[in-house]
Amino acid sequence: MAKHLQRDLDDLQRDLLALAGLVEMAIHKAIQALQERDVALAKEVIDGDSQIDREENHIDEECLKILALHQPVAIDLRRIIAALMINTDLERMGDLAEEIAERAIILARPPLLPIPEKLQRMTDLTTMMVRQSLDSFVNLDTNEAQTVMRMDDEVDRYNIEIIALLVADMKSSPAMIEAGLSMFSAVRQLERIADHATNIAEDVVYLVEGEIIRHRPVESLTRIKPGRVS
Amino acid sequence: MAKHLQRDLDDLQRDLLALAGLVEMAIHKAIQALQERDVALAKEVIDGDSQIDREENHIDEECLKILALHQPVAIDLRRIIAALMINTDLERMGDLAEEIAERAIILARPPLLPIPEKLQRMTDLTTMMVRQSLDSFVNLDTNEAQTVMRMDDEVDRYNIEIIALLVADMKSSPAMIEAGLSMFSAVRQLERIADHATNIAEDVVYLVEGEIIRHRPVESLTRIKPGRVS
Repeated sequence: MAKHLQRDLDDLQRDLLALAGLVEMAIHKAIQALQERDVALAKEVIDGDSQIDREENHIDEECLKILALHQPVAIDLRRIIAALMINTDLERMGDLAEEIAERAIILARPPLLPIPEKLQRMTDLTTMMVRQSLDSFVNLDTNEAQTVMRMDDEVDRYNIEIIALLVADMKSSPAMIEAGLSMFSAVRQLERIADHATNIAEDVVYLVEGEIIRHRPVESLTRIKPGRVS
Repeated sequence: MAKHLQRDLDDLQRDLLALAGLVEMAIHKAIQALQERDVALAKEVIDGDSQIDREENHIDEECLKILALHQPVAIDLRRIIAALMINTDLERMGDLAEEIAERAIILARPPLLPIPEKLQRMTDLTTMMVRQSLDSFVNLDTNEAQTVMRMDDEVDRYNIEIIALLVADMKSSPAMIEAGLSMFSAVRQLERIADHATNIAEDVVYLVEGEIIRHRPVESLTRIKPGRVS
């Protein structure tokens, strides 16, 4: 591989990791703002989204420059395409964190809806998925990518459990219905962030295996032999 | 441009249009199923999503083959990248139509929540956005793309109005809370479909203008001079 291409790919990877760090922090802060009814922190997340958008645009441009300049083939080509896809997923996660922060501002106003206890665990799992999906990209580790895909099932279970509790709260106090809908949205947005981390994990398997695996059940993935890339 | 590249790009465009047709039909049927409480039709949409997924995978593979085989540059390169992005958006729209169909099945069971009257108009607008976003891609028409972006504001307004009505329904009859949440989800999913059509319109402007315009306000777009592509 040409030295310049390798250097550009390394830069690209570093920039993607930096973007993932920003997104992870935005998710963390948005949920903290929601839990602690901290409007200033929520506004910080909303203001911070423009930086995430700028980084996404910058990475898109980097990808296109590398494609145009080096016309990479095979694994390098797939790496750029995967980077483009991951970049889009990260930016959407940033948008979702911003939407959670918007709900946090609404939820800081009375009547104060109790914060579902399981939300913290669901958040921890989701940010872990974001980090691990990026790690799996950096290390081309399909096992880690498959772990991320399995964690998504656990997030989905938390989502269902929390929503069942919310319905009960809303039924017992209809005055909480608007707040309940805002919490419902926030929890759904967190669940969608986990879905985007799953997309990234799928992109990593595609990158390594050279096959498109989106829409296959996780169980079938063990049939793909790892290590085809050398 | 090599004749073979032109032929492959034409094939790609035809396949994207066919996929858009499938997605448009899925959205239309999902909302019809919801409005008419037609479980069989909803199941048809759910079963049909695997065909949408297969088409998306096929188009992804086509894009990668064209990139690897022809190593296109400039506008052709941007066209493939735009096709990859549009393909992803169309597939997500298909997923959202499937999720609406799942809500339709829940909403066909008693207690029967009244169907918000404005849902039909919101659906018509959204499917029009899907069609026009693809038209703008085929014709490289940035004016049409900008019309799509503006229509999204109208969809957002319908979304807010319908949700306000839902909140009122849920407050006056707490027995409707679960059904209300399902309807809330369905309306939000429709709104997200419109967001994906907006993404496509943004990709078209990027394709034509060679600039990344995501995250810019619509008003600023008039500053981009059309026709830089010849």
